[in-house]
Amino acid sequence: MSAFLTPHVASLPATVPFVGPEAQERQRGRRFAARIGANESVFGPSPLALAAMQRAAGEVWQYPDPENYDLRQALATLHAIDPGHIQIGEGIDTLLGYLCRMTVAPGVNVVTSDGAYPTFNYHVAGYGGTLHRVPYRDDHEDLAGLLAMVREHDARVLYLSNPDNPMGTWHNAERITDLVANLPDTCLLLLDEAYVECAPAGTAPDIAPDTPNVIRLRTFSKVYGMAGARVGYAIGPRDLIASFDRIRNHFGMTRIAQAGALAALQDQEWLAGVISDIAIARDTIAGIARAHGLTPLPSATNFVTVDCGRDGAFARRVLAGLIDRDIFVRMPFVAPQDRCIRIGCGTSWDMALLSEHLSGALADASSEV
Amino acid sequence: MSAFLTPHVASLPATVPFVGPEAQERQRGRRFAARIGANESVFGPSPLALAAMQRAAGEVWQYPDPENYDLRQALATLHAIDPGHIQIGEGIDTLLGYLCRMTVAPGVNVVTSDGAYPTFNYHVAGYGGTLHRVPYRDDHEDLAGLLAMVREHDARVLYLSNPDNPMGTWHNAERITDLVANLPDTCLLLLDEAYVECAPAGTAPDIAPDTPNVIRLRTFSKVYGMAGARVGYAIGPRDLIASFDRIRNHFGMTRIAQAGALAALQDQEWLAGVISDIAIARDTIAGIARAHGLTPLPSATNFVTVDCGRDGAFARRVLAGLIDRDIFVRMPFVAPQDRCIRIGCGTSWDMALLSEHLSGALADASSEV
Repeated sequence: MSAFLTPHVASLPATVPFVGPEAQERQRGRRFAARIGANESVFGPSPLALAAMQRAAGEVWQYPDPENYDLRQALATLHAIDPGHIQIGEGIDTLLGYLCRMTVAPGVNVVTSDGAYPTFNYHVAGYGGTLHRVPYRDDHEDLAGLLAMVREHDARVLYLSNPDNPMGTWHNAERITDLVANLPDTCLLLLDEAYVECAPAGTAPDIAPDTPNVIRLRTFSKVYGMAGARVGYAIGPRDLIASFDRIRNHFGMTRIAQAGALAALQDQEWLAGVISDIAIARDTIAGIARAHGLTPLPSATNFVTVDCGRDGAFARRVLAGLIDRDIFVRMPFVAPQDRCIRIGCGTSWDMALLSEHLSGALADASSEV
Repeated sequence: MSAFLTPHVASLPATVPFVGPEAQERQRGRRFAARIGANESVFGPSPLALAAMQRAAGEVWQYPDPENYDLRQALATLHAIDPGHIQIGEGIDTLLGYLCRMTVAPGVNVVTSDGAYPTFNYHVAGYGGTLHRVPYRDDHEDLAGLLAMVREHDARVLYLSNPDNPMGTWHNAERITDLVANLPDTCLLLLDEAYVECAPAGTAPDIAPDTPNVIRLRTFSKVYGMAGARVGYAIGPRDLIASFDRIRNHFGMTRIAQAGALAALQDQEWLAGVISDIAIARDTIAGIARAHGLTPLPSATNFVTVDCGRDGAFARRVLAGLIDRDIFVRMPFVAPQDRCIRIGCGTSWDMALLSEHLSGALADASSEV
């Protein structure tokens, strides 16, 4: 190990939160036929966004606007809030990294659900915080349990995704509002709403943006169909939002992503169409699962988590069987949620492949015991 | 200030290393006519890169490959080294931030030139390091002075850009090799070679990539004409290169940037053309400067730093006069280098505007005393 590393960085594992499907493809020596494992949006971005990105490529010799001014203004209009409540970054991952850098240090306690977002955990460890994990309850993040854990450890940060990844389940706005009302004011809630655009009405709570201890996180990677452009944003109190400027990489966004996201916001009709496509695909996945004797969990996201009805070892075999059949899917990491596999909303072609190959994967998984 | 910040982050100023030209345009209420202030490449990227980015926009719904595998392989081929010596990031800025996070902590001494890259200084401060600055000598970074300062403070990190920004001057490969040979092995050299592709042959030293205390930094923002795509890379020893994986944002690169950079590497002919365009533009700037009684410094970069012949106050007035005339330029921050303004290589249209307006800016600057 290099002698130049700080003791803390030297103590960190060189882990990767996620192995990409491209790495699996390289290892397998062939491409996936269906790419429905990373909660991407196969429905793609608005044609307006695509055109804007292609146009912006023509001025790629110019650095991006480090203030993300136009996009921040447009998001402020969308949410009917002041731009001073909005910070833009290279995806929610980057924003979570900045938030951890801003708030987490050795001795700081952080609470999350056991089996929730690995990249958040990676950043907490990266800044030396202590992570306390609360098990899921009935495949939902356990709001009461999270709150109790925050109190027990006087946690400075609580991470919650609503709707949840990897389970797809959700709490309605009232329950989130209650959580916020009961949260100690010494604890900052990071509310990851990556999937909220495709959740039922009444899922996104009405939280005043100047609430001092809530940061909401949104993304263009899911319903907006722009995961490859790396655009996310945070909504929160002015002082915290302004504090990103102390540490962030001011020129981190690409000029092309800025232009694409800005154009995507202008096409809410496209977004509505995608949301409808997602709802149809969710039903399709649920139907395929049921037809094979499996139990689809209710989902407010662009994927459906499917209970394979046995233990983690069995679900891992089902997953391996699908991957062998060129269908890229993933699954929860932690028991008992690892009895499930997570299937993304796909095109009708993707769904047909799933339907075609699921029984083979199940048969193999059953016979391998 | 938010109560959630760590004491160190709370102590940091909310400074911005650079104000973008877009912010100046918003303030002025009108666009610049010539954008030659940020060392961008007005000659743009290879048409192959442009086409690749426009194609990649069509698959922007997919996350990028977090390993940047294809681009790393191609860079390894270009430099005839193993990909294990290469790390890719969202521009040199991001890589410098990661390197500071990996190596700098309170109590760690870092050496740079006084008036060199503000973004590096920002990251050093951001991780609590102590910065020691060495004045330029004859408008060059002072290698002997830097080395002495490293020894005096037992510095862990030395930052050097060669060719230099903002002065445009450079040291030949032998002098850099000597510096490396004389550097204590407890000091890591960050050798920023952002401009090296357009420097005279014999500027880039031959440093074995497994030299344990040298990281070289390269970018697609300058000669490759892709500043808006945010692509940089580091070359260095395997252990340090692998250590980026402990802390980096694995999904930070955009898929479009990956594709663009990969295609750009395939068009070395375009690169040669740009390098030739840069050389011509440098001569043009030098000629315009001389015709106005100013002294152009020799340059190995895509800009020419021009000595306005008086003090910093005068040069700032000249700069203001050019900006008033819709010509975006910048200048060194620190005396006595701030007697200069820094003019980027432009199109012939940009150069004509410069030629047209420089005398007015100079006349105003002289009369304002």
